[in-house]
Amino acid sequence: MVKVLILGQGYVASIFAVGLERIKLGELEPHGVPLKDELSIKIDQIEIVGSYDVDKDKIGQSIYDVAKRYHKGNVPESLKQILIRKGIHLNSLRNLSIATEGLDDNNTLTDAVDTLVQEWLDIKPDVFINVCTTESFLPFNSKEELIDAIKKDAKDRVTATQVYVYAAALYAKKVGGAVFVNAIPTLIANDPSFISLAQESNLVIFGDDGATGATPLTSDILAHLAQRNRYVKSIVQFNIGGNNDFLALTDKQRNKSKEYTKSSIVKDLLGYDAPHYIKPTGYLEPLDDKKFIAMHIEYKSFNDAVDELIINGRINDSPALAGLLVDLVRLGKICVQRNTFGTVYEVNAFYMKNPGPKEMASLPKIIAFERLKPWAGIKEN
Amino acid sequence: MVKVLILGQGYVASIFAVGLERIKLGELEPHGVPLKDELSIKIDQIEIVGSYDVDKDKIGQSIYDVAKRYHKGNVPESLKQILIRKGIHLNSLRNLSIATEGLDDNNTLTDAVDTLVQEWLDIKPDVFINVCTTESFLPFNSKEELIDAIKKDAKDRVTATQVYVYAAALYAKKVGGAVFVNAIPTLIANDPSFISLAQESNLVIFGDDGATGATPLTSDILAHLAQRNRYVKSIVQFNIGGNNDFLALTDKQRNKSKEYTKSSIVKDLLGYDAPHYIKPTGYLEPLDDKKFIAMHIEYKSFNDAVDELIINGRINDSPALAGLLVDLVRLGKICVQRNTFGTVYEVNAFYMKNPGPKEMASLPKIIAFERLKPWAGIKEN
Amino acid sequence: MVKVLILGQGYVASIFAVGLERIKLGELEPHGVPLKDELSIKIDQIEIVGSYDVDKDKIGQSIYDVAKRYHKGNVPESLKQILIRKGIHLNSLRNLSIATEGLDDNNTLTDAVDTLVQEWLDIKPDVFINVCTTESFLPFNSKEELIDAIKKDAKDRVTATQVYVYAAALYAKKVGGAVFVNAIPTLIANDPSFISLAQESNLVIFGDDGATGATPLTSDILAHLAQRNRYVKSIVQFNIGGNNDFLALTDKQRNKSKEYTKSSIVKDLLGYDAPHYIKPTGYLEPLDDKKFIAMHIEYKSFNDAVDELIINGRINDSPALAGLLVDLVRLGKICVQRNTFGTVYEVNAFYMKNPGPKEMASLPKIIAFERLKPWAGIKEN
Amino acid sequence: MVKVLILGQGYVASIFAVGLERIKLGELEPHGVPLKDELSIKIDQIEIVGSYDVDKDKIGQSIYDVAKRYHKGNVPESLKQILIRKGIHLNSLRNLSIATEGLDDNNTLTDAVDTLVQEWLDIKPDVFINVCTTESFLPFNSKEELIDAIKKDAKDRVTATQVYVYAAALYAKKVGGAVFVNAIPTLIANDPSFISLAQESNLVIFGDDGATGATPLTSDILAHLAQRNRYVKSIVQFNIGGNNDFLALTDKQRNKSKEYTKSSIVKDLLGYDAPHYIKPTGYLEPLDDKKFIAMHIEYKSFNDAVDELIINGRINDSPALAGLLVDLVRLGKICVQRNTFGTVYEVNAFYMKNPGPKEMASLPKIIAFERLKPWAGIKEN
Repeated sequence: MVKVLILGQGYVASIFAVGLERIKLGELEPHGVPLKDELSIKIDQIEIVGSYDVDKDKIGQSIYDVAKRYHKGNVPESLKQILIRKGIHLNSLRNLSIATEGLDDNNTLTDAVDTLVQEWLDIKPDVFINVCTTESFLPFNSKEELIDAIKKDAKDRVTATQVYVYAAALYAKKVGGAVFVNAIPTLIANDPSFISLAQESNLVIFGDDGATGATPLTSDILAHLAQRNRYVKSIVQFNIGGNNDFLALTDKQRNKSKEYTKSSIVKDLLGYDAPHYIKPTGYLEPLDDKKFIAMHIEYKSFNDAVDELIINGRINDSPALAGLLVDLVRLGKICVQRNTFGTVYEVNAFYMKNPGPKEMASLPKIIAFERLKPWAGIKEN
Repeated sequence: MVKVLILGQGYVASIFAVGLERIKLGELEPHGVPLKDELSIKIDQIEIVGSYDVDKDKIGQSIYDVAKRYHKGNVPESLKQILIRKGIHLNSLRNLSIATEGLDDNNTLTDAVDTLVQEWLDIKPDVFINVCTTESFLPFNSKEELIDAIKKDAKDRVTATQVYVYAAALYAKKVGGAVFVNAIPTLIANDPSFISLAQESNLVIFGDDGATGATPLTSDILAHLAQRNRYVKSIVQFNIGGNNDFLALTDKQRNKSKEYTKSSIVKDLLGYDAPHYIKPTGYLEPLDDKKFIAMHIEYKSFNDAVDELIINGRINDSPALAGLLVDLVRLGKICVQRNTFGTVYEVNAFYMKNPGPKEMASLPKIIAFERLKPWAGIKEN
Repeated sequence: MVKVLILGQGYVASIFAVGLERIKLGELEPHGVPLKDELSIKIDQIEIVGSYDVDKDKIGQSIYDVAKRYHKGNVPESLKQILIRKGIHLNSLRNLSIATEGLDDNNTLTDAVDTLVQEWLDIKPDVFINVCTTESFLPFNSKEELIDAIKKDAKDRVTATQVYVYAAALYAKKVGGAVFVNAIPTLIANDPSFISLAQESNLVIFGDDGATGATPLTSDILAHLAQRNRYVKSIVQFNIGGNNDFLALTDKQRNKSKEYTKSSIVKDLLGYDAPHYIKPTGYLEPLDDKKFIAMHIEYKSFNDAVDELIINGRINDSPALAGLLVDLVRLGKICVQRNTFGTVYEVNAFYMKNPGPKEMASLPKIIAFERLKPWAGIKEN
Repeated sequence: MVKVLILGQGYVASIFAVGLERIKLGELEPHGVPLKDELSIKIDQIEIVGSYDVDKDKIGQSIYDVAKRYHKGNVPESLKQILIRKGIHLNSLRNLSIATEGLDDNNTLTDAVDTLVQEWLDIKPDVFINVCTTESFLPFNSKEELIDAIKKDAKDRVTATQVYVYAAALYAKKVGGAVFVNAIPTLIANDPSFISLAQESNLVIFGDDGATGATPLTSDILAHLAQRNRYVKSIVQFNIGGNNDFLALTDKQRNKSKEYTKSSIVKDLLGYDAPHYIKPTGYLEPLDDKKFIAMHIEYKSFNDAVDELIINGRINDSPALAGLLVDLVRLGKICVQRNTFGTVYEVNAFYMKNPGPKEMASLPKIIAFERLKPWAGIKEN
């Protein structure tokens, strides 16, 4: 059994919950779940046991109620059992015209963290999945600096995600092992402060920024070109969508962190920093969760012939990430079973846009997957 | 030193010759050559020593003269040394409104083969690269049947390529080792008759059908989807170009063999035969060697969300293949050095659309490349 | 009131029926109906009064029953009133693996025509809309030749459409006026034999081949380039779909007539015959009625700069045509009211791919629409 | 004879000069010149008589010298005759890392204007074409306010373009007639202050913002959809290029004015303000003058079927505008011959993105062209 606790009951978490329950009911094949039922832990062993948010309209409601806003078809009844609790806010929804409330509104951070840990000792989750809205953040220089910021109640210095990881570490230490899956761009698996904290607290961290959308495809296409020693002259990648995540990215500071993450792949994959423009570009409400992507790549082939590729797509953002989470929660639990704490590059390299730890490069996803399978105990067919 | 003999001095062979000489002159980087200068044999050790064709306008001319028709810029003077000789015809240019003459016009096949072998013993090539126009062909059931057809002068049963391989085998046996790179769709590395002939004649065969154009990209994109367990609903791939190869494919029978080769990848890569329409579709003269490709892929993601990818490209056909040949001639020579005869799946899996031997499946090209490198003695960086 | 009789109860006719009834019920805006409610005859004055087909599975069923196969949502109950009658076959569904029966199976053509005319005198339609499957056909040289073929029961010489027009002319003469909208490629409005027959029989003919899909868009884009005097070097247009019409076009002879129609626009619009490849290319079942199109246009701009446009689309085939029919039946009735018989270029130029009469060229659709409005009595805003 | 004076000797002006001279030499067809040689004034009657810039590297050089930087092939020798003079600066190149000098550096605006008018009385141009870099600007409320700003030497209030128009008006009054073609986004033909000034000064103004790139195509495609009453759900249009104009647009304030201009077309053409994201998005140097565009349009067809169009292009930016200028200078001269001063909507509607005067809407370009031809005295064929 893998007990999962959701941090941020938005689009991704709702699709994750609906899809998972439908697979367990036999209504759905596990499309979009890379390791399907090949792991030692099966999909039907995953159980959602809790959920947190800071949207006033969601707190106190069931996952069922909230999921109905995002999923057009039937929502499984089993999701009526879990009510959404009040989480950490810290301005994570600013500029989004959503009425919010958080544990930190009238409490110090220390008190808020205590509350969380107490609740979790009650709920007993194995895995936390962090699917909050993209935040504007600053990394930490050391574990001490992080602990200090929380102790000093420095609400402008820390983000919701950073507080959640801290609380998860305290919890993991008490129960002997837990997992934090960071599916958003905030640097956690890439921040040595958090890795060090995790290692000494029996916490597994996967991160950062779930590898969905255009970037993993770009990664594999660049690998395709690199293997043929084609010289990439320029890369353009546009993204536009209509979900809350794109709306949040119109906030300039948040967009910055995303941009940093995504652009690092070019040099990692090609070996040189080909001129590129890779950005989540805009928000257009009617596109909803199905974003539009446009890529243009120009490169030199043999004898300096110039070729061009143009790639367009309509891609459902949230299901892509939700499907990866079905693997990540199980891989996390396997780490706990193996007493492997800190972070795991073999996992991050495939599932994350910005795979931690910091010093590791991006790999072509196709190759990362080949290397993941033996780590996960899956035999080559 | 790798001595190369060209069979079919068309677009590909001309760009191969021009690009190779320009790289040797230091005018050009080896873009489009996958293994660059990482092999034990370096690019500047390749020397073109002979060329054959059946186009009356080419026979007797130098590669320099012919290459000027295909390459817009300066053609290296060194290509003035090699004159094009009369090759095997056997209707390989039918329907192409080109005036032709072949060794087989006034000779039996046996005599034509004798002539070739005699000339080759004189020229002493290490590697034959076959870049004739796409042929309409039938595979053989056994080596004996092949030998019998040539002995009986069955000019309707055999194609130019098949005769060239037979002659190359006779030559290889006499000199102790040679290589035949089959870059066109005629089944050679996939025909057990030829593999058996090669093994007993000290011939290395690489084939079949150089992995250029849209298909290797399609292969890597399908692998990308398969790894995420996305369920592919449909695949469309159009190709249109204006070079002689596209013109030849308007000939229905030739198109058929091409279609067979290309479609096999879908099941190999996905594990199921997703409905697909993958064809070289048409000929349009002004597109010249820079073909236009259009792909459409629709698939199911997690929770049965439906995504779409559309990929368009303008891709120079001949340089893509020519760049691969720069590796293949060197890898072939390495096989001879290692006394490895017959065919080599590790090489074919990356460089060929239809990698022989027959019983082996298509691999995603990105993975095939990862497996090729250790075989070729290249260290992981 | 405009009473409409359907010939060929397939995808288009079913969507036409469903959409029309839903607009009348107020469930739907008239999207896709160019003249909306700007005509003197309003949309809610259109009434479907009869339907014919030769598919055994449809004859005797109601439009409601058949429409349920094509329209995913609710089908209006009003469509239960009209039962589908047995029509003219003449091999129009050959190669489609559909069990058929037709009035012509056990009757002479003359008898079949008599039956139709008798039934129609009973039903009293104002307008026939012909949305049969694309046929393989031969035009007629004269009205006499047509009449002769029917009299001689030359079932191999005439198509279902040609017989229907002949019957409609007999009917129109008796009732003083009727309309035949030919939405398929068979030349009717472009065949002087039928125009002459129509003129003396009080029949209005609109045709040929409803202007849907990629071609009208191509037309407007070519006009866009022509107006800037850009020199078009090449045009590629692929189409692939999964409805019965695409399946029928895999039948080589049918495809031929379609190709003829579509290609004529290039010279009409550009003034020169730019090299082009414009074809409905293939059939792929999972695409269903939503075809995939891919266009590539390369042209010279000022100072001989070379530009490229690539246009892709997913376009629902049947609704596009069904929306035009909502205008055409009303425009036809207006012709009868005005005593205008034969064919009307002002109407055909906008609504048809191959606008009759024969001697008239294709116009850019945007301009054709500007000229249609005054003809239809619509004031410029 | 039409004597042309260039304001801003950048990419567009250089391609204009090269292309014009090559056409006059018979080296080139007038591709990209909409009215070809159909006007009463022929292309070979156009003569370039002067040029101004504020780039230190250009002042004092000949057009020939400067054009060599932009045009890859041979530049006609005749362009050696015209030397580039020092123009008005006013920060128009700020943030572009170009060393500049302007007449306004050490002079009052009044003196700078006097210098210009004196020089022009010497050179005797008929037409000024303004192809300066996109500026950040504020419109004027009245002619008086404009005159006042110049008199008071308010260098922060006025832009180079605004000063040039003012000087051109003074000049036109003295010589009895002149033309100012404003091909950049600064509102001139849309600013009633300038129109009023022009009318009383015998100046013709065409503007604003030459209709090149993706926007006119978008306009015609939206018209195509509007005519079929398809309901547009969303419109995305990305643009990225590598010329100085795209670099200038990374300057936030300049980008703003461009955005304003381009977005106005949606409501004008559709009749409702469909949600849209239409922006020049980014700068990527290797794309040079050949920008990449990507458009996505989603709309409802009949029976609420949802269709999608995706349009990509590689479009040479400068030649597109340069070709229009060949018409505009001649149409301007025709206005002077007809004593038509102020601005002319018939001309602007086709050639401009933001056609003045202010109160006039955007028309589909195809229709605007149909209306232009009779105005220009061109007979329908």
